[in-house]
Amino acid sequence: MYRLTEVDVYDVRFPTSEHSDGSDAMNPDPDYSAAYVVLRTDAPDGHEGHGFCFTIGRGNDVVVAAIRALRPYLAGCPLDAVTSDLGGLHRRLTHDSQLRWLGPEKGVAHMAAGAVVNAAWDLAAKRAGQPLWAYLASLSPEELVALVDFRHLTDALTPQEALGLLRAAEPGRERRAAALRETGYPAYTTSPGWLGYSDEKLVALARRAVADGFTQIKLKVGADLGQDLHRLRLVREAVGPQVRIALDANQRWEREEAVRWMRELAAFDPYWIEEPTSPDDILGHAHVRARQPVPVATGEHAANRIVFKQLLQAEAVDVVQIDATRVAGVNENLAILLLAAKFGVPVCPHAGGVGLCELVQHLAMFDFVAVSGTREGRVIEYVDHLHEHFADPAVVRDGHYRAPTAPGFSARMHDHSLAAHRYPDGPVWRDRPGHDAHPLHPQSGQEGPR
Amino acid sequence: MYRLTEVDVYDVRFPTSEHSDGSDAMNPDPDYSAAYVVLRTDAPDGHEGHGFCFTIGRGNDVVVAAIRALRPYLAGCPLDAVTSDLGGLHRRLTHDSQLRWLGPEKGVAHMAAGAVVNAAWDLAAKRAGQPLWAYLASLSPEELVALVDFRHLTDALTPQEALGLLRAAEPGRERRAAALRETGYPAYTTSPGWLGYSDEKLVALARRAVADGFTQIKLKVGADLGQDLHRLRLVREAVGPQVRIALDANQRWEREEAVRWMRELAAFDPYWIEEPTSPDDILGHAHVRARQPVPVATGEHAANRIVFKQLLQAEAVDVVQIDATRVAGVNENLAILLLAAKFGVPVCPHAGGVGLCELVQHLAMFDFVAVSGTREGRVIEYVDHLHEHFADPAVVRDGHYRAPTAPGFSARMHDHSLAAHRYPDGPVWRDRPGHDAHPLHPQSGQEGPR
Repeated sequence: MYRLTEVDVYDVRFPTSEHSDGSDAMNPDPDYSAAYVVLRTDAPDGHEGHGFCFTIGRGNDVVVAAIRALRPYLAGCPLDAVTSDLGGLHRRLTHDSQLRWLGPEKGVAHMAAGAVVNAAWDLAAKRAGQPLWAYLASLSPEELVALVDFRHLTDALTPQEALGLLRAAEPGRERRAAALRETGYPAYTTSPGWLGYSDEKLVALARRAVADGFTQIKLKVGADLGQDLHRLRLVREAVGPQVRIALDANQRWEREEAVRWMRELAAFDPYWIEEPTSPDDILGHAHVRARQPVPVATGEHAANRIVFKQLLQAEAVDVVQIDATRVAGVNENLAILLLAAKFGVPVCPHAGGVGLCELVQHLAMFDFVAVSGTREGRVIEYVDHLHEHFADPAVVRDGHYRAPTAPGFSARMHDHSLAAHRYPDGPVWRDRPGHDAHPLHPQSGQEGPR
Repeated sequence: MYRLTEVDVYDVRFPTSEHSDGSDAMNPDPDYSAAYVVLRTDAPDGHEGHGFCFTIGRGNDVVVAAIRALRPYLAGCPLDAVTSDLGGLHRRLTHDSQLRWLGPEKGVAHMAAGAVVNAAWDLAAKRAGQPLWAYLASLSPEELVALVDFRHLTDALTPQEALGLLRAAEPGRERRAAALRETGYPAYTTSPGWLGYSDEKLVALARRAVADGFTQIKLKVGADLGQDLHRLRLVREAVGPQVRIALDANQRWEREEAVRWMRELAAFDPYWIEEPTSPDDILGHAHVRARQPVPVATGEHAANRIVFKQLLQAEAVDVVQIDATRVAGVNENLAILLLAAKFGVPVCPHAGGVGLCELVQHLAMFDFVAVSGTREGRVIEYVDHLHEHFADPAVVRDGHYRAPTAPGFSARMHDHSLAAHRYPDGPVWRDRPGHDAHPLHPQSGQEGPR
């Protein structure tokens, strides 16, 4: 009997704040980071499970500590018992009666559970010899339902209803998988629209995105209305009326501010407004959606399936944006895909950061093949950053993600990338003395970003 | 100029799971714990700031790591700059643009910010020579409003409205403070009602509580309806019709299950039902409140002020239960007290655990003196556990908390208690080999609590 032998965790950070890549109204200086986990086994096939939680710098070490706290659930476990019952693993990790106090089911502890659950899925898919999306799509409706934790969901979705949705999507799985391999899955790009970029860079990147085959781009907004109107006009003129321009306020606004602001920006026909206010504010999103004309998108910071349930019940969203590493991994995202299917709302995953494109493409593709059964009105975010660090990087051509073919969850970072970016002792950081030592208290006149 | 010199953090745990103390439908075996922080200064007055985050065992180390991640915001800071602008400290800790990704404003990172904010308040109150409740009640309405972060609150409460509420409560502050010193603040006790107790122990403790002067007690419910009916009948018979019996389901139920269950338990005239379902389920609480006759209480697991805002907006709660260490400290609880006052809903704080009674009494007493202006329909939870570890323990007599008189926030644990219970190296834990080593994976047949 083979076993999981080790749970290795790495604090990996990229100094992205040096180039304003990823800057938005709430996140002026992110250092894209990963609390990265490797599950090792004593099986002779040599497969490892790789997973991670994406963060934006400070605090990545806290997620590392939270992943380490889960080690007793894995180290020494029989390998087959884990990979043949990933629903059980998911439940054990999220319902440990003591760890649960740290959420419940939200924040650092939940994200850590997600990293570990995803690493276990990477391992299971490798053992099955399939890319994760195809492995998931090979499971029966009954097997898929057994993966979901329906606790606190049943007023919106029962196991029986979930089974019905999955059975209804069973015919045509093979046809859709073939279509996916043939034409890929639609992508949109956020690369042009970061707040820190100049007008020239913004326009040039927007034109380039259209030339590259993207039919949707996204701009960050929310810091200054005049600037937003100016930038949106520039981009609309540059790309013409046919290209969709989505907007992202990154939680910046009060509820009424969002309504006012979007009534003005609506003149340029935005495709959606993303995170107009606090990600916890379900009633606020419903209010914004009801009082201005632009569709509302949210989810990358929604803490768990219970928040998504309410966003759908309150008719607060037009677009559900799942994130691969904020909720508790594949299992919880499966619950959210099923909820969205039940309510008939399209899922357009959040990606970018480091490795999020690699992960979330599998979930959207599985959704197409086995849950919603459609790519209509669906699109996966794409940001052209940091893919070179991955062994099986996401590939986007002509505005479409290509279907991954390598076994696993595409989560593996190159060993040399892990080694170079280990924080604080990897060479990339060793050579930046004092990077993390900038004083954050009032005496310095530099009070930390608001 | 004096400075904050050190931020010392301790992992302190009590082996409470050995006696079923604190057992409920979701938490069968808690080991009450504290991620404990001490702010030290070079000022000759020798004052320290003590604070902590309460947890129930595993994962306490993760909160310790999160508090350590906040050290750069404090170590080396000018002391006066910190204690004279605790609103600024609160905002810097909760809106660090990188750490914010770990929530935002929820879970481990937020609880860690709360521990540090509370320690800074302990220090400020000691320097002012007053117990925290009196120190807060000595601040002007303008000073109090400046302490609150109104981001994502203004659709329910503006700074101007908050100022109006505080000004309206200004007359009579001294009279109410005198009344508080004279007669204390009403308490209720949860000590009788833990699920793990036998019928005999339950009835004996309920009778004892009434004999001790309590007019309200609380029972844990939610594991088994027949058992709950049985236990509730026993206790109702033991205490008579006048004593309030509150019930606590600790998030156990689905929405419809809560409605069904409470329609049955309503026969015994419960005073409230606490946490009937997921603490994230605002719409679920509203549903339960509307469809069965027992008042709904919640809040000890509500992640932040934005969740409380919505519980009030959705008319989902009859009772707001603040917790001293789940949200970001005194400042965020001040926001929640103001929200509750605006909506006219009473605040009945959650306490128990380790040290929660000591902390939260200050917030309720301040609310009486300077915010709501009343003790009517208000009551602070009391559990008679672990107070012996505190230098200034909460004192309850004749069913009332006595007003603390020692300067500070009553947060300080005895040095010998800290030393004895340090995890895993303190003597209390050293002598329990393997306590933390119980296998949590499927191989053992002991899959961890559900």
